[in-house]
Amino acid sequence: MTDTPQNFRCEIEGGIATLRLDRPDRKNPLTFESYAELRDWFRALPYRDDVKAVVFGSNGGNFCSGGDVHDIIGPLTKMTMKELLAFTRMTGDLVKAMINCHKPVIAAADGVCVGAGAIVAMASDLRVATPETKTAFLFTKVGLAGCDMGACAMLPRIIGQGRASELLYTGRSMSAEEGQAWGFWNKVVPAAELDAAAQDMAARIAAGPNFGHMMTKTMLNQEWSMSLEQAIEAEAQAQAICMQTEDFTRAYNAFVAKEKPVFEGD
Amino acid sequence: MTDTPQNFRCEIEGGIATLRLDRPDRKNPLTFESYAELRDWFRALPYRDDVKAVVFGSNGGNFCSGGDVHDIIGPLTKMTMKELLAFTRMTGDLVKAMINCHKPVIAAADGVCVGAGAIVAMASDLRVATPETKTAFLFTKVGLAGCDMGACAMLPRIIGQGRASELLYTGRSMSAEEGQAWGFWNKVVPAAELDAAAQDMAARIAAGPNFGHMMTKTMLNQEWSMSLEQAIEAEAQAQAICMQTEDFTRAYNAFVAKEKPVFEGD
Amino acid sequence: MTDTPQNFRCEIEGGIATLRLDRPDRKNPLTFESYAELRDWFRALPYRDDVKAVVFGSNGGNFCSGGDVHDIIGPLTKMTMKELLAFTRMTGDLVKAMINCHKPVIAAADGVCVGAGAIVAMASDLRVATPETKTAFLFTKVGLAGCDMGACAMLPRIIGQGRASELLYTGRSMSAEEGQAWGFWNKVVPAAELDAAAQDMAARIAAGPNFGHMMTKTMLNQEWSMSLEQAIEAEAQAQAICMQTEDFTRAYNAFVAKEKPVFEGD
Repeated sequence: MTDTPQNFRCEIEGGIATLRLDRPDRKNPLTFESYAELRDWFRALPYRDDVKAVVFGSNGGNFCSGGDVHDIIGPLTKMTMKELLAFTRMTGDLVKAMINCHKPVIAAADGVCVGAGAIVAMASDLRVATPETKTAFLFTKVGLAGCDMGACAMLPRIIGQGRASELLYTGRSMSAEEGQAWGFWNKVVPAAELDAAAQDMAARIAAGPNFGHMMTKTMLNQEWSMSLEQAIEAEAQAQAICMQTEDFTRAYNAFVAKEKPVFEGD
Repeated sequence: MTDTPQNFRCEIEGGIATLRLDRPDRKNPLTFESYAELRDWFRALPYRDDVKAVVFGSNGGNFCSGGDVHDIIGPLTKMTMKELLAFTRMTGDLVKAMINCHKPVIAAADGVCVGAGAIVAMASDLRVATPETKTAFLFTKVGLAGCDMGACAMLPRIIGQGRASELLYTGRSMSAEEGQAWGFWNKVVPAAELDAAAQDMAARIAAGPNFGHMMTKTMLNQEWSMSLEQAIEAEAQAQAICMQTEDFTRAYNAFVAKEKPVFEGD
Repeated sequence: MTDTPQNFRCEIEGGIATLRLDRPDRKNPLTFESYAELRDWFRALPYRDDVKAVVFGSNGGNFCSGGDVHDIIGPLTKMTMKELLAFTRMTGDLVKAMINCHKPVIAAADGVCVGAGAIVAMASDLRVATPETKTAFLFTKVGLAGCDMGACAMLPRIIGQGRASELLYTGRSMSAEEGQAWGFWNKVVPAAELDAAAQDMAARIAAGPNFGHMMTKTMLNQEWSMSLEQAIEAEAQAQAICMQTEDFTRAYNAFVAKEKPVFEGD
């Protein structure tokens, strides 16, 4: 995993990696290159013990304007099926990499959060917005279907099937107020406080217990397609594993000593 | 697919088929005949390119009072198991036909929306109500279970498991206000504006991209029982298919020309 | 099934079993013994025709403080993997027993409702709280993962994936107001009215139709991992079975006679 990516900004500090797309003049579109590099970055993340949480932040007042019309959509209209499937699998692989990266991801979205940008927010674990954040799944606006990068699977699980259907069919903008009322945004804060709110949330996650958090992330994503009985058995195994970490003993000892536990991630 | 059904009204105009049950004096109950004819009508819908969206409307201030007590429930109490299963499969087949009909369905429900009527609304893709709409899953009131026509699968996915449980166990009425706050209704409008609101919604859908909308409908319903990884691969394939439609190119060309795209459905 | 459990209170009256943990001075923690006895009690419940509904109530102003730190967490930190898995499976078995006990369970939670206590509330079918109820999934606070006793499967289905993620990662308290707005609590009433509200809800359930309610419970839990098509077929079979109960005929006869039906559960 590179700490100096070419197609987005990345700062790692205090166990928190903060990413930002970096074309603020164009509201931070995604390109073929940034898709691929983000995918590779998230794929390498499970092996980076020094990163405990990720903030996917905004830049210049906007989160992400999605796939660039000129750089991406134009070329796509000329591709063969083989090339198209390679592209849609690459974008899907970014989402797979995010949900399998083990570290909780916090999207901090200001302004424009649309298309693939809305998917990146949706594929994050926690989401913070500002009153100005406008979220839209624009795929139908460019003649495509609402099913992109897992949207039809994930969005209904966050805001319910009826609301997800409306957003995915119409491509209409979801206001920050709606997004908070519907459970898409965990928090809405003034734009000036967005970075601090996301960093604060990330710092709490980074403080651990990180082995536990990584297991929580895995199970939250795996259990959607299990029966309740299977999920309960899977959690019995997962939690038994966590009970053999030192962090569990550290927490107990801290409790007995009436202290605040300090987690070390093992 | 008949354009002149015997057991409900059907008007097709501008790519929108508008259905209405037609016994307003009895709040539009369903009968053996209307169940079967609706099932057949929706089953034929995928082959009707001239219909892009469906509005399932109200009539005389009510949507649907469900299975008629005299015409349906009386006879059911005297049936053999073979006959009963044939009936419950027929009602289930109506829901299967609706979710597999490819065209987005918009329920426009005023007044009474209960029993199988509530299921028809639930099995639609988008839902508009009026402040007077009362929705109830009445099955327990007639001595049966809340699991009818897919209710225990679909309702929790729309409004959450806790609220769905209450409505399905108790059969109590959900007010329009609750239904909107819980994500069951996409919109609540005055009764006088109900038809216009539903037609407006349908017109936006009918304007396309229809190939995309049909794929969205398919995937929204299929992905509930997939893992996230499976769903993402399924969407990569589905969206790659959509990228080979002319509507995708039309949208791109319109964007470059700074015009509004006109979709043609291929 | 014992009517005189050793580790919790149990009163059976009018078809309603009311359980309460009974260490109010310590906010009703769970112990190894109470986990096991509750599991056994719920496992025996399907065979008890005299119990139609269960209220899991509060005691001394609190619902349940979860696994006791001294009695449970201390010993766990010293166990082998074999012993740990036996414990996590036992706690999971309590949830499995609750969701398979056939009788609707109503949690009536005042005050502290945390850890395994929050899971017991979550695994119930209906939930009533007071303005003072504080619900927290505390597992990360003791160095563990949020995936405990099925939490990552059930909580997202009740309140949505985004809100569930926040509660499970952070362990933060969900206020009663949030819990009602998010669909976790079906009702919030003043503490003085909590028992009456839960008993009223249970009495309505106990009034039947009990065969139907038991089928509703089974299907609400089974259908999460079915496809919609499978769920619709499963409900066709389940409802056809219910249509052969006498309660269905009783309801029809009562309707014709303009009387209120009296259900007998067969």
